[in-house]
Amino acid sequence: MTTSEYQQLRQVLAEISDINAIGALLNYDQSTIMPTGGAEGRGRQMALISRMSHEKFTAPQVGHLLEQLQKQVEHWDQASLEATVVRVTAKDYTQATQVPGEFVSAFTEHANTSYMAWAEARPANDFARMVPLLEKTLDMSRQLSAYYGAGAHIADPLIDMADSGMTVAALRPLFATLRAGLVPMVDAICAQTPADDACLRGPFPVREQIDFATQLAAAIGYDTNRGRLDTSPHPFCSRLHYGDVRMTTRAREDDLGDAIFSVIHETGHAVYEQGVAFELEGTPLASGTSSGVHESQSRLWENIVGRSRGFWEIHYPRLQAAFPTQLGAVSLDTFYRAINKVSRSLIRTDADEVTYNLHVIIRFELELALLEGSLAVKDLAEAWRARYTSDLGIAPADNRDGVLQDVHWYAGTIGGAFQGYTIGNVMSAQIYEAALAGDTTIAPALAQGNYAPLLGWLQHHLYATGRRYDAPTTLHRVTGSSLSVEPYFRYLKAKYGQLYQL
Amino acid sequence: MTTSEYQQLRQVLAEISDINAIGALLNYDQSTIMPTGGAEGRGRQMALISRMSHEKFTAPQVGHLLEQLQKQVEHWDQASLEATVVRVTAKDYTQATQVPGEFVSAFTEHANTSYMAWAEARPANDFARMVPLLEKTLDMSRQLSAYYGAGAHIADPLIDMADSGMTVAALRPLFATLRAGLVPMVDAICAQTPADDACLRGPFPVREQIDFATQLAAAIGYDTNRGRLDTSPHPFCSRLHYGDVRMTTRAREDDLGDAIFSVIHETGHAVYEQGVAFELEGTPLASGTSSGVHESQSRLWENIVGRSRGFWEIHYPRLQAAFPTQLGAVSLDTFYRAINKVSRSLIRTDADEVTYNLHVIIRFELELALLEGSLAVKDLAEAWRARYTSDLGIAPADNRDGVLQDVHWYAGTIGGAFQGYTIGNVMSAQIYEAALAGDTTIAPALAQGNYAPLLGWLQHHLYATGRRYDAPTTLHRVTGSSLSVEPYFRYLKAKYGQLYQL
Repeated sequence: MTTSEYQQLRQVLAEISDINAIGALLNYDQSTIMPTGGAEGRGRQMALISRMSHEKFTAPQVGHLLEQLQKQVEHWDQASLEATVVRVTAKDYTQATQVPGEFVSAFTEHANTSYMAWAEARPANDFARMVPLLEKTLDMSRQLSAYYGAGAHIADPLIDMADSGMTVAALRPLFATLRAGLVPMVDAICAQTPADDACLRGPFPVREQIDFATQLAAAIGYDTNRGRLDTSPHPFCSRLHYGDVRMTTRAREDDLGDAIFSVIHETGHAVYEQGVAFELEGTPLASGTSSGVHESQSRLWENIVGRSRGFWEIHYPRLQAAFPTQLGAVSLDTFYRAINKVSRSLIRTDADEVTYNLHVIIRFELELALLEGSLAVKDLAEAWRARYTSDLGIAPADNRDGVLQDVHWYAGTIGGAFQGYTIGNVMSAQIYEAALAGDTTIAPALAQGNYAPLLGWLQHHLYATGRRYDAPTTLHRVTGSSLSVEPYFRYLKAKYGQLYQL
Repeated sequence: MTTSEYQQLRQVLAEISDINAIGALLNYDQSTIMPTGGAEGRGRQMALISRMSHEKFTAPQVGHLLEQLQKQVEHWDQASLEATVVRVTAKDYTQATQVPGEFVSAFTEHANTSYMAWAEARPANDFARMVPLLEKTLDMSRQLSAYYGAGAHIADPLIDMADSGMTVAALRPLFATLRAGLVPMVDAICAQTPADDACLRGPFPVREQIDFATQLAAAIGYDTNRGRLDTSPHPFCSRLHYGDVRMTTRAREDDLGDAIFSVIHETGHAVYEQGVAFELEGTPLASGTSSGVHESQSRLWENIVGRSRGFWEIHYPRLQAAFPTQLGAVSLDTFYRAINKVSRSLIRTDADEVTYNLHVIIRFELELALLEGSLAVKDLAEAWRARYTSDLGIAPADNRDGVLQDVHWYAGTIGGAFQGYTIGNVMSAQIYEAALAGDTTIAPALAQGNYAPLLGWLQHHLYATGRRYDAPTTLHRVTGSSLSVEPYFRYLKAKYGQLYQL
């Protein structure tokens, strides 16, 4: 069922997709190979492309088309691509037009000022400098939430932007259950002799690390004809369009795990984007459906597959061959324990699987407290220390490794920034269980180093649908149930029960 | 002297500069690192950016502003930046609006069809397939010339597009003089024992070649904070803006000269673009003034400096150190003769300094004959062979290495495509003579491997002015005279007189 209005909408959306692809390239180039002299011009170019994309999408012509189409769509098959494009586009249009342009500009400018201050304040350990900026961020985050309209909780509209369909009411009890299970698990593990990860310290030449990691990405099923790997200060994955999904990594000579697991992590994001059905190309449906679902795939491949013993039974001999002097005498068991070392640590991005979510939950609950008004910005650093002491049994000596460590609050909104990481971890186990149950050939294939059955199952059941469904619906379609921590606990208990006495 | 209209014009021009910079990045990425799957989307993205740039520049608002400004400018200092911006922009505007949009689209589409056919026809040695396409190209080239309006010769408007201020009437006698001098020089050299260039065959690992060439570029004065070097099938230089002027090279294990001299050649283009005065940024003046003047700088650095004995007296020991097994036992004299080997050859892009212009002059005169109607497209391959026999004393066995070898006619207009190469060679010697005469510290500095005085002189007298003046005016300002072959003959005779008995 298509009409002339639908064709017109598709044409506008296709052009916006191309504009956004150009914006993605500008950003990718800047983060990877652009010379330093390019920075000033690049800032202008990126602002120009964002403005063009925003103006084209929020044009009255698009609103008018959507109005007509929303009447037509009632008579269409609601599950059809056409009806879904109209529905998702209309939701995006509402979000994009709900916020006044001047507010968007003012917020972007403030976020940029705050980011630049943070880039200096973090190394200087100067939280006091950030307090007035964060207070303004908090005010503006509340204002933004108000523009998006009433949720049951003030954070709900902000969470919905990143994780459509998720709410504070759903997440708070889930995270509480998670915390209640994780804290004693961390205590039990950390009471035992820590794993020895000296074998990861090398030095390992960077070029060879990246070559090896690239081979792992290809083995998993990343299509290098439709992507490439470069290096950047912070790893990320960038979809230009169906045929061009790139990713980056970083590498350190003294940390073999950094490049390898960054690449497998980004490969998870990238195979999701590469797997979105071609028929969605040129529409807002052509990408992963939410932060959390995206993170579920990076974590599934990085942790559940990539840090499993079975994975390294296949790949460790090749890793030893690539680094014979460093790893020739290191056993698989030693290596496997090293890459799964659990410890109480201060920095989220360096945290292991077991402690990671405790870092996230602290941030999520502090965000809510700030938005609700029960915590003042000036008391945030102290609250941070208190929560780290109670949840992780360790407290930062300074704010640099405490409340100043993550860029999110200093360059974006307060609210909505962190929950996706933990949703992703929880979902990863739930989706993996569903995959193993859904196709019994997956597990034996994995043991042979054949990732095609798992990747194929995920592509068919999850990746292909892109943004057709919101996060809860997508999860339900893939697993038959709603978000649950049980599979994640089963996964952690099985894996770490074998590694430690639990 | 600025007015509100002038400020408005500058704002539009700045935005168009940013759009064009984005287009340059899309092309650069495609030619260097884009995965193959990116091609289809990239075609759409580049078309979109070209269209945006064209639409923004040819908008009635711009025409209206220019009309008002052309009245105001009469009262301004004619040499001022403001008056020059208005004058050059008005000329560009006239050219851009003289040709109907439908004709531009039709020509672009035909050129693309023709290019794709050529990409198959050249390896298949199938000139017959190209004849009807070339006939259409010829018709459309004539039509384009007619849109641009009357020149004394039908090729003049097409030549003017690439080499502003140049005409058939000026070039024909100049090229005839050149040919008359070159043919006997080639005869005299080729009657002697040919230079032995076996020392360039290696194999030389590609990565090390590029590293060495990159150091040469930096030694010459290429600012790597405002640029970078990548690899691509065909070397080129691309200006995004003042802070980002990139270049590419290719490298072959069995030809040491390919990477080294491609890089020095592109360095010449790049230092020209990097040297354009910052005050011209964001206007149409911010680039080299013509194909010929641009080529004069790539050739000055590649040939006059880069293939000189003095250059290698400094750099050859470093080259030997980089490739000790390949070059350790090869003398500087042998190497110097090898990189300046003269021979009758079929392929323009592989030709040496002495024969190169004969290749160009053949193409230039055949273009004119086609446009004048004195040569039919179907007879072009035969005419090509006849001219190669008479001018170069060698004829291609097939059309692949004959009339099909260059992409220019098959992907663009007939007329205007080739003259810039020879204008550049001729100018390079003229400008170099002027520099040595203008600053007597240049020559002794060069002998020490110090390129700063030469680069500084060129920046100050030539690069900084960008497109402020057309090619003949620029040349006159730099050298005090109009285009002349005498310095070029003096240069060739001095250099090759020392290498051969002349």
